[in-house]
Amino acid sequence: MEKADILVYGCIILPMNGRRFIEDGAIAIKNGKITFVGKRAFLKTLRAETMINAKGKVAMPGLINCHTHVPMTLFRGIAEDQPLEKWLKNTIWPLEAKLKPEDVHVGALLGCLEMIKSGTTCFADMYFHEDMVAEAVKKSGLRSALAEGIIEAGNESLGKKMLNRSVNFAKNFLGYADDRVTTFLGPHSAYSCSLQLLTKIRKKCSELNVGVHIHLAESKENFREFENKHGSSEVKFLDNINFFKSHVLAAHCTNLSTDDLQVLSHKNVNVVYVPVANMKLGVGAAKIKDLTDLSINVCLGTDGPASNNTLDMFETMKIAALLQKLVYLNPKVLPAHEVLRMATTNGAKALRLTKNVGSLEVGKKADLILIDLSKPHLKPLHDIYASIVYSACRTDVDAIIVNGKILMENRHVKSLDEQAIMEKAEDTASDLLAR
Amino acid sequence: MEKADILVYGCIILPMNGRRFIEDGAIAIKNGKITFVGKRAFLKTLRAETMINAKGKVAMPGLINCHTHVPMTLFRGIAEDQPLEKWLKNTIWPLEAKLKPEDVHVGALLGCLEMIKSGTTCFADMYFHEDMVAEAVKKSGLRSALAEGIIEAGNESLGKKMLNRSVNFAKNFLGYADDRVTTFLGPHSAYSCSLQLLTKIRKKCSELNVGVHIHLAESKENFREFENKHGSSEVKFLDNINFFKSHVLAAHCTNLSTDDLQVLSHKNVNVVYVPVANMKLGVGAAKIKDLTDLSINVCLGTDGPASNNTLDMFETMKIAALLQKLVYLNPKVLPAHEVLRMATTNGAKALRLTKNVGSLEVGKKADLILIDLSKPHLKPLHDIYASIVYSACRTDVDAIIVNGKILMENRHVKSLDEQAIMEKAEDTASDLLAR
Repeated sequence: MEKADILVYGCIILPMNGRRFIEDGAIAIKNGKITFVGKRAFLKTLRAETMINAKGKVAMPGLINCHTHVPMTLFRGIAEDQPLEKWLKNTIWPLEAKLKPEDVHVGALLGCLEMIKSGTTCFADMYFHEDMVAEAVKKSGLRSALAEGIIEAGNESLGKKMLNRSVNFAKNFLGYADDRVTTFLGPHSAYSCSLQLLTKIRKKCSELNVGVHIHLAESKENFREFENKHGSSEVKFLDNINFFKSHVLAAHCTNLSTDDLQVLSHKNVNVVYVPVANMKLGVGAAKIKDLTDLSINVCLGTDGPASNNTLDMFETMKIAALLQKLVYLNPKVLPAHEVLRMATTNGAKALRLTKNVGSLEVGKKADLILIDLSKPHLKPLHDIYASIVYSACRTDVDAIIVNGKILMENRHVKSLDEQAIMEKAEDTASDLLAR
Repeated sequence: MEKADILVYGCIILPMNGRRFIEDGAIAIKNGKITFVGKRAFLKTLRAETMINAKGKVAMPGLINCHTHVPMTLFRGIAEDQPLEKWLKNTIWPLEAKLKPEDVHVGALLGCLEMIKSGTTCFADMYFHEDMVAEAVKKSGLRSALAEGIIEAGNESLGKKMLNRSVNFAKNFLGYADDRVTTFLGPHSAYSCSLQLLTKIRKKCSELNVGVHIHLAESKENFREFENKHGSSEVKFLDNINFFKSHVLAAHCTNLSTDDLQVLSHKNVNVVYVPVANMKLGVGAAKIKDLTDLSINVCLGTDGPASNNTLDMFETMKIAALLQKLVYLNPKVLPAHEVLRMATTNGAKALRLTKNVGSLEVGKKADLILIDLSKPHLKPLHDIYASIVYSACRTDVDAIIVNGKILMENRHVKSLDEQAIMEKAEDTASDLLAR
């Protein structure tokens, strides 16, 4: 076997490919890809440029955060414990109106830093000035599925302009940063875009062969208002224009009718379950078992850090499980191993990245994390899946590798200057509030 | 001003005494007590044996975990995602039957270590061989309110024996470990003890002037079963024997009638809100606003690590807030500052320790933590309360001081041997499973 670039050895491996965990495993990486994964004993020679002794650690695919607005790190903790509408109208929208591209860049860098430090290797983002997010992705070394947001809000010419921007972004940044960026179109929601615009978006998706990232059925209130106005649910409304012919990543889905569920199932819509933000904004809880019983692909998202208030996928995994047990009053619902699948393989599928990431298999891109088990809260180790979902926390992530590059080792971030980014973020936020 | 033992300076202080936070503050500690807390500028001389420069950190009262069974760290992650009854009968009870006092000691040490590392300075515990927990408290340096559990389960002589043990423990360990241990009686619940036994317990409480720690109204199922058997709710049943004349610490309370609420309010019962375990076991959610609207003192607990699976009060604070916003479908319910009060001052009141801990004030015992704000997920800093409740995590705790002793500094635990305890816990758990 030729010399690898990186060899991780001695760890427990959770390949997340449907097979059991591997003890005393090894993972070899060459040219950004996995060339070996299995028992260390089965690897003939242990030779690599970089050898990582990962004894006492777990190696697993990096976590995939399928719904966020990373530049909103800048608004973390602003106007807390308020209703969504008041929070948006009185605080967020006025601040966003003042946002410059360079602010978005700073916020995105802070978000990427936070994700690296908490074991997220890939994220799906929707915001404005998304090219600035792409720049942050390039610098940070992360993988992402990015969409420039489109909100029409009754203004037809604005809608057209934003669609053009979103299309241009999707074209220009597809494959950006060593192919670590994939792109989506980003219509905000069915209620903030017109039928005409949504139809155009659907056509553009087919034309460009890109997916679409949208908020869907976020609350009961939404649902009622929309039905009063259009005589159908958001899901049916979209289905009527054949919107789900595209690859759709639909965030939230806390309020669905039985018919809606059938549509999402038949049309292979990917649902992002966003438990923390849904709870924090008091909008309700998605009924995930209803979705998975219909074989709908469910993945996980944190939402923007202004309504969460972190980008921590470990927290989201635990709360995702807890909330479903509560919703169904049944502790068996959404067990730990299923949550881990949502945060890895299901996420990859939802972002159309299954070929490259989501599990540790030969030929896939080397996107993985090492979790350090030598912590009091992870002792004793009875069940590796439960340990990761119910006991571990973001800072147990010791190392993260994306595309075969080590972005963090021993919790030291290599791709970004942690101190400088934190200072710049503080300055930018102060400046923004003073404008 | 005489020379202090410890001087913490340069930090933001959240005194949790009803007043605002203090910037560039200082806290002086002498003989285990706080002798100064306020603006650094108001402190005449900066002299102490140990000077702690806490710039970039927040000092606040240590977190108080009001309901747990710490030795159950040994069962962390065993038999996951199962219904309560099956989990107890098939796994936990058979294992507990094999538990030796020395196992309980190891489990308690691991729990104390985990609590120190996550910013908990005081905890209320209920288990068997509670003297072993007291020993762990002594070694670790933590503060606690301990109760030897009493379960009669239809066996009168067993009930008597356990009551005697609980009474002896309460007498013998009151004031143990430099007064860091206070004691309670520990009847498991109204449904697992007879009317006669509960009446005796109530009398013993008056006689010894100790409080009582009990599980109450943990689930709908419980509620229905109990009502069928006794013709009244657990709360009414206990009230009929004047049980709430004692100082009562009642864990869970997820299912209460309007009458029950009135009783808890009139009798000044202290309710421990246990969001994580309640969700994980799928039993339901306490309606905390209903309690606080009636001025009932509500504090927070993690429950035992076998049904949580951590002793992390940061996680519990965040989930406590999220869950109430969901229960009332209102994001304004249980704001961050109120959650922090529950985890500090309300906890102290519930454990009858208000005179000594729960807030940072001159004359109180020096039980405090330092939280390091220089983390990406805590930037930028817009709202210190929201940052701690919604963004911070257990490992942001940099230092912890209890009774004027530094138990951890720069995340290095001084009172316990971290590595040795983790190893011992692994060995003990393996041995227990093999017995």
